[in-house]
Amino acid sequence: MPRFRLLVSYDGTDFHGWQRQEPPGKEPLRTVQGTLEVAVREALRQPVRVVGASRTDSGVHAVGQVMAFSAATPIPVERLPWAINARLPMDVQVREPRIVREEFDPISDAITKGYRYSIVMPHDAERLPPMFELRHAFWTVQRLDIEAMRMAAASMVGEHDFAAFAHAAHGRESTVRRVTECHVTSPAPGHIRIDVAGTGFLYNMVRIIAGTLLEAGRGRRTAEDVTRALATGDRTLTGQTLPPQGLCLRWIHYGERDESVAC
Amino acid sequence: MPRFRLLVSYDGTDFHGWQRQEPPGKEPLRTVQGTLEVAVREALRQPVRVVGASRTDSGVHAVGQVMAFSAATPIPVERLPWAINARLPMDVQVREPRIVREEFDPISDAITKGYRYSIVMPHDAERLPPMFELRHAFWTVQRLDIEAMRMAAASMVGEHDFAAFAHAAHGRESTVRRVTECHVTSPAPGHIRIDVAGTGFLYNMVRIIAGTLLEAGRGRRTAEDVTRALATGDRTLTGQTLPPQGLCLRWIHYGERDESVAC
Repeated sequence: MPRFRLLVSYDGTDFHGWQRQEPPGKEPLRTVQGTLEVAVREALRQPVRVVGASRTDSGVHAVGQVMAFSAATPIPVERLPWAINARLPMDVQVREPRIVREEFDPISDAITKGYRYSIVMPHDAERLPPMFELRHAFWTVQRLDIEAMRMAAASMVGEHDFAAFAHAAHGRESTVRRVTECHVTSPAPGHIRIDVAGTGFLYNMVRIIAGTLLEAGRGRRTAEDVTRALATGDRTLTGQTLPPQGLCLRWIHYGERDESVAC
Repeated sequence: MPRFRLLVSYDGTDFHGWQRQEPPGKEPLRTVQGTLEVAVREALRQPVRVVGASRTDSGVHAVGQVMAFSAATPIPVERLPWAINARLPMDVQVREPRIVREEFDPISDAITKGYRYSIVMPHDAERLPPMFELRHAFWTVQRLDIEAMRMAAASMVGEHDFAAFAHAAHGRESTVRRVTECHVTSPAPGHIRIDVAGTGFLYNMVRIIAGTLLEAGRGRRTAEDVTRALATGDRTLTGQTLPPQGLCLRWIHYGERDESVAC
């Protein structure tokens, strides 16, 4: 049975996260996976289980989530987005369909993933909440020192034990991960982007990295604190978990074997 | 009794327009005016009627609406935004408080108003809806010729009879208005802004101007059609009324007398 892979974008605001949730005896919650499965089932006229590369939390957005499913269908692969998108609500959409090898697993085959955390600091005198950006960014009235954030961000890069950057309930045996990129940029006055990429992430890791860099920007933590947190695993040395709406899953890279399969 | 003037911003998505609506025997609809009146009443501990310069339609946004109200209050004028914003939901906010003369009328004293209509044309191969911009822009898969739009826009400027650019139910005796500015710009690939300013607007006029320029961009209308529509008042020569979510009230200018009152 052919296996298909598609990129998925969604505005996470009105979803209870990626993962299907069907509480017994209750209506299923509105999730990205559940919504996609309904659309794919209607498009392909058969029940389909879709697997996503990353189980993003409630409120987290994606422009480059990867999903896969196996199904026999007469629909040509290049028409799949058209067939599925026609059955999706406006806050989720699929694109870039490919046929992949039968064993393709979007979770375990992923090599690196890239996330962005967006922060807005209103820079007018009144510092009002940035009304039109509240769904897709975290906002703060405090001034942030971007250079201090950059120095702290540089300390994240490399293979480290990120235990101090994980939610207590991370449920993983090893907390060692490789962060390949951690950049702080300002695309416009009052706007800050934290781009983090790595081979794997612990539960809430990007949001805790962002919270730690926020505190570095406020002068409350330094690059040395980050180094110490990585050395000791002490969660008290890292910042708050920033809220989900600032986070977006941007891309996932797979190996050459999976990249090269044409659609 | 002192009279106050404030600027108002709102995301119009979840409002039934500016104007208070209290259908008899039913819950009042969620409107910007109604929401502001509740917040001002709670902040000032007295019933207050607020007047807005422009009765924007359901779904239309504003970053520079002007409102005024009269009230006796011990709250210093510069603290009014703080007191009112604390009682407002996140999709409406006030700023730049001033004391104005007692007779100040935000509607009849307005000299010029500026609106922006935003259009997004997805420019990737798949031309999917721009999910993260759907609340604040109109989108179209068709390619638009910006130069053609600019030429048609230039024909709008000046004092003309805009009867062909008004909703049939405009309810005005005279349909002559002066458009002082009508610019088409592209701040980023695939993004188009239509900035229209003038001394007054008929019902739906900016949205019909935008719809006419859209058709000019598609090659279906020309600058000559605009000139003919202005000369004849023929509504069939102008474009569709574009949907409200692309429209934003940007600013309102008052005379020198009203601008100079310090807060």
